[in-house]
Amino acid sequence: MTGNAHKAREVAAFFQGILEVEHVPLDCPELKHDDVGEIARGKAAWAFGQLHRPLIVDDTGFSIHALGGFPGPYAAYVLSTLGNTGILKLLEGVEDRAAFFETAIAHADRTGTIRVFRGRIDGTITGSPRGTGGFGYDPIFEVNDRTLAELTLGEKSRISHRARALQALRTWMESLPE
Amino acid sequence: MTGNAHKAREVAAFFQGILEVEHVPLDCPELKHDDVGEIARGKAAWAFGQLHRPLIVDDTGFSIHALGGFPGPYAAYVLSTLGNTGILKLLEGVEDRAAFFETAIAHADRTGTIRVFRGRIDGTITGSPRGTGGFGYDPIFEVNDRTLAELTLGEKSRISHRARALQALRTWMESLPE
Repeated sequence: MTGNAHKAREVAAFFQGILEVEHVPLDCPELKHDDVGEIARGKAAWAFGQLHRPLIVDDTGFSIHALGGFPGPYAAYVLSTLGNTGILKLLEGVEDRAAFFETAIAHADRTGTIRVFRGRIDGTITGSPRGTGGFGYDPIFEVNDRTLAELTLGEKSRISHRARALQALRTWMESLPE
Repeated sequence: MTGNAHKAREVAAFFQGILEVEHVPLDCPELKHDDVGEIARGKAAWAFGQLHRPLIVDDTGFSIHALGGFPGPYAAYVLSTLGNTGILKLLEGVEDRAAFFETAIAHADRTGTIRVFRGRIDGTITGSPRGTGGFGYDPIFEVNDRTLAELTLGEKSRISHRARALQALRTWMESLPE
């Protein structure tokens, strides 16, 4: 469950041929919290109350070390106001470019029990945007000399924070008794 | 009810000699919402469920026009990460310095009915911080050539966003039948 069609595509790409994933956009109240895991857990509990069936909810944060973790859980709001331009301006002349994405995926099973799976990717903020793929902060976030926006959806689906959280979810699913 | 002792002092100063205000810090879950009125309403409902007596809750946003309304409802988080230095950096070379504070005060009466009162103050962002009073963004927010941090608590208590919301609350209180 996400309002973001890009995220939905990444999730569908990940589970292709394994599991059918339906994208249900819901206007979900969201707790203000520092931890993406707690935010995702709260949204999953709410969504289960609406849908009464197994579901996953994604919440992603973006933390820049030199900015005290900013934008953190407010990644989406900051992107829509300051954008990548604002982030680059804040980091002008700043040497420490370390940053990471963290995704928490909360899974509600058919009984409403919620489990949270996390994935993280560490990288650095570029000096200027590069690449046309991905979305959000991808063009200014670099791992091994390439920004996430310079990766194909397939490449990104193997290494990204969201892919890692989905992988953790899949490992757990595969460990369940039939 | 607020976790912020500065706010509590401003509220106490406003009601001095009129009403006794007790400051009860509560660790209150907070909805993520664009509108400070809705945030304050949600917190007041939650707090009334804990305290079961009349109370007020404050939520304040800070919106900078050239930054698409940023930091908006995330004023506290942005202050603790970017600080005023970060705001000034974002506005380097930006001509449009218009900004406003908005406070929403949600009042729960003894039956738990919630009313929201708002106050707003318009001003501009300075080039550098000035003044030692107030808190938060006060040193970089200017109205009539003085920053809020250059005002005494008494002066600020007459013109600020919070004072205006409190004034609206007081007007309503005074209109009630004895």
